Amino acid sequence: MKEHMRIFSGSSSPELATTIAERLGVTLGKIKLSQFKSGETYVHYEETIRNMDVFLVQSLSHPINELFVELLVMIDAAKRASARTINIIVPYYGYARQERKSAPREPISAKMVADVLTTVGADRVITIDLHASAIQGFFNIPVDHLTALDLISGYLRNQSIEDAVVVSPDAGRAYMAEKLANRLDSPFAMMIKKRPAHNQSVITHVIGDVEGKTPIIIEDLIDTGTTIVNVVESLKERGAHDAIVCATHGLFSGEALKRLDHPAIRELVVTDSISLPSLRPDRLTVLSVAPMLAHAVRIIVEGGSIATMFSDAGI
Amino acid sequence: MKEHMRIFSGSSSPELATTIAERLGVTLGKIKLSQFKSGETYVHYEETIRNMDVFLVQSLSHPINELFVELLVMIDAAKRASARTINIIVPYYGYARQERKSAPREPISAKMVADVLTTVGADRVITIDLHASAIQGFFNIPVDHLTALDLISGYLRNQSIEDAVVVSPDAGRAYMAEKLANRLDSPFAMMIKKRPAHNQSVITHVIGDVEGKTPIIIEDLIDTGTTIVNVVESLKERGAHDAIVCATHGLFSGEALKRLDHPAIRELVVTDSISLPSLRPDRLTVLSVAPMLAHAVRIIVEGGSIATMFSDAGI
Amino acid sequence: MKEHMRIFSGSSSPELATTIAERLGVTLGKIKLSQFKSGETYVHYEETIRNMDVFLVQSLSHPINELFVELLVMIDAAKRASARTINIIVPYYGYARQERKSAPREPISAKMVADVLTTVGADRVITIDLHASAIQGFFNIPVDHLTALDLISGYLRNQSIEDAVVVSPDAGRAYMAEKLANRLDSPFAMMIKKRPAHNQSVITHVIGDVEGKTPIIIEDLIDTGTTIVNVVESLKERGAHDAIVCATHGLFSGEALKRLDHPAIRELVVTDSISLPSLRPDRLTVLSVAPMLAHAVRIIVEGGSIATMFSDAGI
Amino acid sequence: MKEHMRIFSGSSSPELATTIAERLGVTLGKIKLSQFKSGETYVHYEETIRNMDVFLVQSLSHPINELFVELLVMIDAAKRASARTINIIVPYYGYARQERKSAPREPISAKMVADVLTTVGADRVITIDLHASAIQGFFNIPVDHLTALDLISGYLRNQSIEDAVVVSPDAGRAYMAEKLANRLDSPFAMMIKKRPAHNQSVITHVIGDVEGKTPIIIEDLIDTGTTIVNVVESLKERGAHDAIVCATHGLFSGEALKRLDHPAIRELVVTDSISLPSLRPDRLTVLSVAPMLAHAVRIIVEGGSIATMFSDAGI
Amino acid sequence: MKEHMRIFSGSSSPELATTIAERLGVTLGKIKLSQFKSGETYVHYEETIRNMDVFLVQSLSHPINELFVELLVMIDAAKRASARTINIIVPYYGYARQERKSAPREPISAKMVADVLTTVGADRVITIDLHASAIQGFFNIPVDHLTALDLISGYLRNQSIEDAVVVSPDAGRAYMAEKLANRLDSPFAMMIKKRPAHNQSVITHVIGDVEGKTPIIIEDLIDTGTTIVNVVESLKERGAHDAIVCATHGLFSGEALKRLDHPAIRELVVTDSISLPSLRPDRLTVLSVAPMLAHAVRIIVEGGSIATMFSDAGI
Amino acid sequence: MKEHMRIFSGSSSPELATTIAERLGVTLGKIKLSQFKSGETYVHYEETIRNMDVFLVQSLSHPINELFVELLVMIDAAKRASARTINIIVPYYGYARQERKSAPREPISAKMVADVLTTVGADRVITIDLHASAIQGFFNIPVDHLTALDLISGYLRNQSIEDAVVVSPDAGRAYMAEKLANRLDSPFAMMIKKRPAHNQSVITHVIGDVEGKTPIIIEDLIDTGTTIVNVVESLKERGAHDAIVCATHGLFSGEALKRLDHPAIRELVVTDSISLPSLRPDRLTVLSVAPMLAHAVRIIVEGGSIATMFSDAGI
Repeated sequence: MKEHMRIFSGSSSPELATTIAERLGVTLGKIKLSQFKSGETYVHYEETIRNMDVFLVQSLSHPINELFVELLVMIDAAKRASARTINIIVPYYGYARQERKSAPREPISAKMVADVLTTVGADRVITIDLHASAIQGFFNIPVDHLTALDLISGYLRNQSIEDAVVVSPDAGRAYMAEKLANRLDSPFAMMIKKRPAHNQSVITHVIGDVEGKTPIIIEDLIDTGTTIVNVVESLKERGAHDAIVCATHGLFSGEALKRLDHPAIRELVVTDSISLPSLRPDRLTVLSVAPMLAHAVRIIVEGGSIATMFSDAGI
Repeated sequence: MKEHMRIFSGSSSPELATTIAERLGVTLGKIKLSQFKSGETYVHYEETIRNMDVFLVQSLSHPINELFVELLVMIDAAKRASARTINIIVPYYGYARQERKSAPREPISAKMVADVLTTVGADRVITIDLHASAIQGFFNIPVDHLTALDLISGYLRNQSIEDAVVVSPDAGRAYMAEKLANRLDSPFAMMIKKRPAHNQSVITHVIGDVEGKTPIIIEDLIDTGTTIVNVVESLKERGAHDAIVCATHGLFSGEALKRLDHPAIRELVVTDSISLPSLRPDRLTVLSVAPMLAHAVRIIVEGGSIATMFSDAGI
Repeated sequence: MKEHMRIFSGSSSPELATTIAERLGVTLGKIKLSQFKSGETYVHYEETIRNMDVFLVQSLSHPINELFVELLVMIDAAKRASARTINIIVPYYGYARQERKSAPREPISAKMVADVLTTVGADRVITIDLHASAIQGFFNIPVDHLTALDLISGYLRNQSIEDAVVVSPDAGRAYMAEKLANRLDSPFAMMIKKRPAHNQSVITHVIGDVEGKTPIIIEDLIDTGTTIVNVVESLKERGAHDAIVCATHGLFSGEALKRLDHPAIRELVVTDSISLPSLRPDRLTVLSVAPMLAHAVRIIVEGGSIATMFSDAGI
Repeated sequence: MKEHMRIFSGSSSPELATTIAERLGVTLGKIKLSQFKSGETYVHYEETIRNMDVFLVQSLSHPINELFVELLVMIDAAKRASARTINIIVPYYGYARQERKSAPREPISAKMVADVLTTVGADRVITIDLHASAIQGFFNIPVDHLTALDLISGYLRNQSIEDAVVVSPDAGRAYMAEKLANRLDSPFAMMIKKRPAHNQSVITHVIGDVEGKTPIIIEDLIDTGTTIVNVVESLKERGAHDAIVCATHGLFSGEALKRLDHPAIRELVVTDSISLPSLRPDRLTVLSVAPMLAHAVRIIVEGGSIATMFSDAGI
Repeated sequence: MKEHMRIFSGSSSPELATTIAERLGVTLGKIKLSQFKSGETYVHYEETIRNMDVFLVQSLSHPINELFVELLVMIDAAKRASARTINIIVPYYGYARQERKSAPREPISAKMVADVLTTVGADRVITIDLHASAIQGFFNIPVDHLTALDLISGYLRNQSIEDAVVVSPDAGRAYMAEKLANRLDSPFAMMIKKRPAHNQSVITHVIGDVEGKTPIIIEDLIDTGTTIVNVVESLKERGAHDAIVCATHGLFSGEALKRLDHPAIRELVVTDSISLPSLRPDRLTVLSVAPMLAHAVRIIVEGGSIATMFSDAGI
Repeated sequence: MKEHMRIFSGSSSPELATTIAERLGVTLGKIKLSQFKSGETYVHYEETIRNMDVFLVQSLSHPINELFVELLVMIDAAKRASARTINIIVPYYGYARQERKSAPREPISAKMVADVLTTVGADRVITIDLHASAIQGFFNIPVDHLTALDLISGYLRNQSIEDAVVVSPDAGRAYMAEKLANRLDSPFAMMIKKRPAHNQSVITHVIGDVEGKTPIIIEDLIDTGTTIVNVVESLKERGAHDAIVCATHGLFSGEALKRLDHPAIRELVVTDSISLPSLRPDRLTVLSVAPMLAHAVRIIVEGGSIATMFSDAGI
């Protein structure tokens, strides 16, 4: 396997890529990633990849447009260097929240990203917990869509949380929360909102019983953290204990990490799908998706079924 | 406008197409639709469409595969007959529930349908209340995605229902129900389910208050009606009044109409996006999407913004 | 070879697919083919096909649109399940008679089918006796176009038919009949028709000598059988013996089999390219294309030349 | 109409293009066609074509590869010069006889030509009497497939030929001959051949009655004329009168014109779809397709149905 | 013209876009350009563009990847909003220097940019002085490639520079310098370099006579200015007067403007193809390309030949 | 390696192809290349190529359009014969000088050639010293762009030419000449031209010192030789010795070889990228690119880096 396969990391995730490579018993491929003074991205593979199955690891996290274009340039160079297949591992697929038009004359950027990646030369995508599962269908190349839900629910089960209630922070995420509730055999609650204006929302009430319970809030992604803080404060007002907040992707834009270092949050659980700062709040727990991704790479190269990896494919 | 535009109906929706044409002050175009003894579909436009903007009306309702292939053949013939643009009006977009892989080695048929329609030659899609909004992004041709939610909420507001509560029949639909609740200024409730096995689900409890209230259940689609019956019975057990069941698309597969002629259902409200049998239960109310579609056609031909037609684009 | 190859059958031809698999010494792959109540086709591969050469067997026979869409869904699911190549074995390629416009504003459905199969993801087509050889050119993926003419002429030579005359039922098929006549070293005759109206034709006379001879009528396809009955009756009137009617594909639409159980037909020879009912007329002989298809699969997987299989590639 | 439309001629057919332009009341567009010393073709439009409907007239006659590449270069230059649409009038579509594989490892050059024309930028094809009608389906852009059969049969009817018999020179052309026989209300005969080796054929007998009759031989194309000479001599031996030989396309490769200046040929009727030498045998009659093509151009630009131009679209 | 046309500006060039709009007598279209906290670009057209010819102005200057992705999102939104055509005005086409592989396993980013723009939906490109003219050929959509060389040489002629000599800063730019020399009727000189290591170069000598002359240095692009400073200093050492430095595109990366505020530079002439800071060195002259671009837009919408705009199309 | 690989030669370069095959220890594949009387090209592979890596050798030299179409037909036939990959070795890529529009309404034929080769089915291009390096970017399939500059500079170094000066025949070629000068550690000079009219040019002066020196003129291509003769005569007038003229590609159109048998040319050095007549002037030296191409083929089949073959990839 090792002979015909190479893993390279983009700028977003050198640690994750290194861990994946280690688990596979290979060395990370040598690649030069730089920017000219003009801001143009430059990529150069420093070892031959002719006839090889190339895996490129790049999360579309901060700064997203730079990382996206870098990935495009990496793919273009790999294609022109005669790689046999170009497999992109995008642990966090940015722009996923722009997956439909919610107003006229908007883009569907998640589709634009998919089309562009395919045009430039990607042969396969490996990704985790897409904001909307239908994004798989934006591609006509194979998509291996993994989930961290087992990782997260396994971690939570080990914690033996008493009086847990799974809380969906809004109606759009209810499906994912219901799944977690079923796995943890916990009751379920949901926040109900009004949207008095575009991009505004106010929690009006909570349906389901939260008083005296420990809320487990589940999200695919934590961005600015503002919603989460509103939710935990709203739960506190209704008599809930401190919350455990879980998400696959910890994007933590702006002041998010500071904001989430909040007394009403008992623990914050995310994965390393996105690189995190080394200085982290104590209450932050990071689970690693590297074993899952390494296993996926092995199956892609050697054959077999990725279905054996988790109990439920689409969140 | 009338000079360069023609509307043709596929086999699924002759009445709807006729109504649309009437509202536009044009006659429905003449087309021969038939099947050879071999089962092969045959299509022949019986008037010239050279250099014209052609609108083809076809819902992907029963029998879906026949109607889908008929639509493909209609598009192919229009393309080869030098139509200027081919606009397909698909009031009900079938296969929309297969918009992601929920298990390994499944198709994403909703994307397959989109790719095939585009390959064969469609230039634009006009559709209503897609099961998943992201399906818009399955297309790279423009999609005018209309909604019947205003039509339905307008109708309900005129009914002045007392003590209404909007009920989401499951977590996946919570977003749409929340929207309706906001428009009707009503409280909200949701059914919580377990899935003991694949394709099985049992309602375990209801979150939110339903006792002594009139539930308004909202769906994009009613298929076999089994879920709805479970929901209304479950609501009755919890002390609710008879329910009002609303959906954009009344597919009513198999015995659905008989099943939904149920004592706990006060009224069943759907649109004519799918042709309905002439013998209908008394409790069935049918709202027409023809004015909305005719308006969309006018704007597509003459220019302007479809955004002016409804208050909120994506369900 | 067996390790990286899987054969799956669509709904049209489970027996043929099983025989092909047996001849190759492999088991038919497990696949779930079903329809939802909504009529939507659902497909699920029940074993891994990642990195494999997949062969899908599906004739576009009755009910053609259902079988066609099922094949599309099978291809889509195989593509998304990371099959290495998707090879479709379409023993009978339906819609082949719509391979050109014979009137304005008609479709070219045979091309539409080819484009759609390619778009969805087919990498190669294996088929038999296309109604028009040029349909090969409708594809840009490789087409292995086999012929049953050797199978049929071999069978006929073994019968030692006395005073045989090969008869072309109409001008469009004269080329195929001339070929068979050359192989059997027999004389040749042809029916001449008038077409007083669209889709009508009347045999006006026969050119070539048929009196006191045994006509061998050759067709690529028997559909309703009406033409054949006209031909054999017309030959009888001109003093011919009972005819032997041969065709690669026995589609037998509607009452065809009953109609062809006709006193002036001595024998009806077809292949199993299309599934036949178990209750068959005595005069029906079925030759199997399974050995030919199995041989083609072996060569596709292992390399070599399919040309060695038959004496003449295009009918 | 004239404002937004320009007609240009390639090197193959300046006279035909001029006549078409004259009938439309426009001047032929100015274009520079030349070759560098290196043999590379160079094209330069000497007037603006921005936003115009451009019609390029080029038959794929002698020297076919030069003319084909010239047409490609003309299309490329028109595309890059912002023509609104590029319509190619290819009165004679060369390579049409390579429309299927008749042996393994052959090209399907007729499809290659179609794909290449489309890739480079053609938006529409206007052509006459394709050797195989299915070639229409090789294109996904609209093809206006005209026929000269009415022109030829009209001419023949005016001649009041006594005791005419329409003769198909081989089985592959029987369909076209049958059509002409029906139009002239004449009997029908056909030459039967053996092919003792590849690319060899010997007429073995004639089916149908030719003695004492005037044979009208119909072909889509006369190439070297060898087959025609064999046919007319063979007919003479069987007691037929001198023949009238008709074809849409007079390619007359090599010594064809000399060869066909044959005592057993009473008249040779072709069209000007291919440029003919100014020194022509007396027995050669040339009918012009220019009115038909000019009419097609008018309809393409102004709209309407080309179906009104001829009684039967596909030969 | 104004009715069906709209001009929108990306973030790179609001002033230039405004000036173009003014010259055309139209108002700049309203568009919302913003970034979410996640760094994702968001675009919303605030007026209808259905059926319109849309012109999007965006130079790929600093910060290039942000501006490039913004342009992609603008195109995607315009396509989905049913714009009739999407014309992108990219006064400065970044990544143009990566137009070929100069080492193995490098990208050809200039082609990647072209492919991506086309995939996402651009119908036409208007650009100025591409670093390599062959980049036009990277597109299959029409490219209107304008040049500022006339603008610059016109300006210089008005200056009546005595004893001018046009100097090419390196061998790769000699062609452009020769052109300017011909227009100004001046002598010509060139710097000769060694490249002791990758990305390093040392001027070894100058060919041509520069002593006592005023060098006019011509470039398509000034990036960091380091090369220019080396050239002018090298010229000074060889006895030349202070130089006039000209370029179409003033990218001025990093400290370039400060670096070029250099005593040996008499004047620095660029265009407004790239937005310049309001605080500029005195010696900087900015010529405007707005009239040229406005004229191009007018011709694209109304027809005509852009060739009339300048004396020589490709630099 | 030999098992799955076959090399075939087009009509342009049988000797070169044979030498490549010999160096690889394989026999040249059997292919029939012919033309029908109609001028149509016909190709037939006379051995199986199913599942093989096929290499087709064809220079686009004289007669270019014939050779280009022959190559297209070869690719089409290989694709339809199920070759695994189709690699085209085009030692001399004709039409490369039409790589940009130098006037409005011109083609970019070099891009047209690239698009067409890709559409028809080429998977990879191997070529030498493209006239413009950016042509690599015209392809989205991998291009292995080799250079003969090492071959030529190696040969020249062995000659120990005294007082050599490398001369660029015009500004456009200065970059290549500078490279050679660096490799030979020689001084550099350049011819300066005026273009009084389109396609005319007059050498006005030479920059750099040539008196008493031996000029080494370097070109990618010698076409008619007229420019070269002008250059050497101009150099003689300026006191230079007889010149050594070098080029990768010796196209020698028309009377070029006679013209270049010129007293002021001491030696003419080209490669066998284009077939040369067997009768050659004494002063013509031919270096072989066969070892370089054979090495490239080996690396393509077996993997590895072509970068190891030469010191500098893009001229």
